[in-house]
Amino acid sequence: MLYDITVPQFIKGLQQLSTFLDKASTTAEAKKFDVEVLMNSRLAPDQFNFIRQVQIACDTAKLGVSRLTAKDAPVHDDSEKTLPAIKTRIESVIAYLEKFTAKDFAEAETRHITQPRWDGQYLFGTEYALHHMIPNFYFHITTAYAILRHNGVDVGKKDFLGKMPYKK
Amino acid sequence: MLYDITVPQFIKGLQQLSTFLDKASTTAEAKKFDVEVLMNSRLAPDQFNFIRQVQIACDTAKLGVSRLTAKDAPVHDDSEKTLPAIKTRIESVIAYLEKFTAKDFAEAETRHITQPRWDGQYLFGTEYALHHMIPNFYFHITTAYAILRHNGVDVGKKDFLGKMPYKK
Repeated sequence: MLYDITVPQFIKGLQQLSTFLDKASTTAEAKKFDVEVLMNSRLAPDQFNFIRQVQIACDTAKLGVSRLTAKDAPVHDDSEKTLPAIKTRIESVIAYLEKFTAKDFAEAETRHITQPRWDGQYLFGTEYALHHMIPNFYFHITTAYAILRHNGVDVGKKDFLGKMPYKK
Repeated sequence: MLYDITVPQFIKGLQQLSTFLDKASTTAEAKKFDVEVLMNSRLAPDQFNFIRQVQIACDTAKLGVSRLTAKDAPVHDDSEKTLPAIKTRIESVIAYLEKFTAKDFAEAETRHITQPRWDGQYLFGTEYALHHMIPNFYFHITTAYAILRHNGVDVGKKDFLGKMPYKK
């Protein structure tokens, strides 16, 4: 269950996030400005910029899955400054997530999960996924989307949700 | 499982959304402007305003749970124009959600879910929750948050996530 509600949806969300970057690039070319302006944009002066939003979305997925499964995650040093670099970061996290299967989550539901800032407190794996990982993941994907949307990039709800597995 | 990943988290998300409204009210009072300005704000001219974001977050939770359980939902006519009215809308949806238990979701996973715009296509209940309801719910809560954040309301990540069920 924890695999189903995290890994496949995080992969999908990151793939959609990558399409936002393509639209940001197209907009910058059409309007003849440097796309790095968008990469450094934010909605409030004390909010993280677009690149940092993407980095946190990536880390929420990567570190969350790593903690739930007790498997090491690749290290990223948050040094990305450009659109191609941040796209590579997304691809790297998708590749990491794609290696997991439901079996890796066999003990995840009752595993004690903690994070550096929690002063030794913990959540059970299921609580961590529902109260922390999933809301945080969509928060940062949506904030990245909102920064672009506010700056005239033609992203829409379909770009956010991605393809639906409709049946007839 | 579908109950656990939807109803309690939607109730929590809507409660947190209601706290954004309290902070919007406090900011408007402190800066001496009409809070309805915030209720009508948006991040792009062709984006829904704050009130509509809240209405859609409410409907995503209400109609989603109604469809998954095949139980009628209360009707709201989207006529809210003020902060107190939209707060009442949120409370009404929380009250609706609080009536559900896991038993109501006994057949939800394999239920065929459709929406008016899907031309008769459907998703299985689990797919609907994971690909549609949950991402959409957080999308609109985060967008409402972002509209306020952009306009100087002092909302932070803790307001979005709410209380964590930490253990020692």
